Parts: sequence; structure tokens; C-alpha cells
Amino acid sequence: MYYILVYDVNVKRVAKMLKLVREYMNHVQNSVFEGELTDAQLEELKYKITELMNKQEDSIIIYCVGSKRWSNREVLGVEKNDVDNFV
Amino acid sequence: MYYILVYDVNVKRVAKMLKLVREYMNHVQNSVFEGELTDAQLEELKYKITELMNKQEDSIIIYCVGSKRWSNREVLGVEKNDVDNFV
Repeated sequence: MYYILVYDVNVKRVAKMLKLVREYMNHVQNSVFEGELTDAQLEELKYKITELMNKQEDSIIIYCVGSKRWSNREVLGVEKNDVDNFV
Repeated sequence: MYYILVYDVNVKRVAKMLKLVREYMNHVQNSVFEGELTDAQLEELKYKITELMNKQEDSIIIYCVGSKRWSNREVLGVEKNDVDNFV
């Protein structure tokens, strides 16, 4: 399935979080990632995130948006990190 | 339709952009918004965003994720700005 992940993480942890999530997903914008994940990959990533984060301070939202072939993604302005075309 | 909007905007413009997008959508995290928009509202918001942004510097991504009743939104850690339950 295709996922969007956004995070709001304390500056002390953001470098490690960025490194971790990038191992699984495309970094498309400041604190925004997209990518295709199997159920196992998702669980593994979530486990590693929860090990790294401070649950009282940090916030991660994971959206499952179905398949990658949906074409409802629109960019205004700069495409900060090009993700191959969805259509 | 239900939309997720994420932005990466120059600090000079971020306060105005936050104020603008909040008029249309729920501010759920640092630079992340969610909300139900009609086609007319979406077009109006996009027009106002493009008037405000610097197209060479700023980046806005708008995801259409269908209807609000999808239940594939998971939060790890803190829910920074509570959005009523999706299920």
C-alpha cells in the first residue's frame, strides 16, 4: 500500500528520525515522506519510530492512501524532492 | 472531497500561509492540514496560496484522499491538534 508520513519531532531527534524514515520512504518535503510499504515494512518502521521517539513530545501521522497509481497529488511551487510521476 | 495539505514555505511567509490555510482546513501538525473541501473552496484556496507564495522557493503539496470516512490515519505519539475521529 502507499503511505504518506508526516512528523513533528523535537529537534534533538529529528536527524535520526529523518535518517530512519528515509530508509523506507521518499523524502518529499521538509517533514513529509511518501512510499510504497508492505505490511511487514510498515510494522518494522513503526516499531523503530516508537523506539526512537518521545511519545509525550513527538507526533507522527501515517496516512494510508491506497495504491500509488492514484493521481490526486498536486504540487504548487517547487517540487523539493522529486518523486517519480504518479500517473 | 477530503484533502491533506503540506507546505514548506519561507519563514517570511509562513505566518500568512498558516493563517490562510487555517481558514479552510484543520491544522493537524506543524506544516500539515486536513479538511473537507468543495471543488470551489479548493480552487479558491489554491488561488490565494499562489498569490501569497514564492513559486521558486515555496512548496505546497495537496493530496486528495477521497472521503473523510476512510479510517487509515494512524497517529504515533502526540496528536498535536485533535481532529475529530475518522471512523
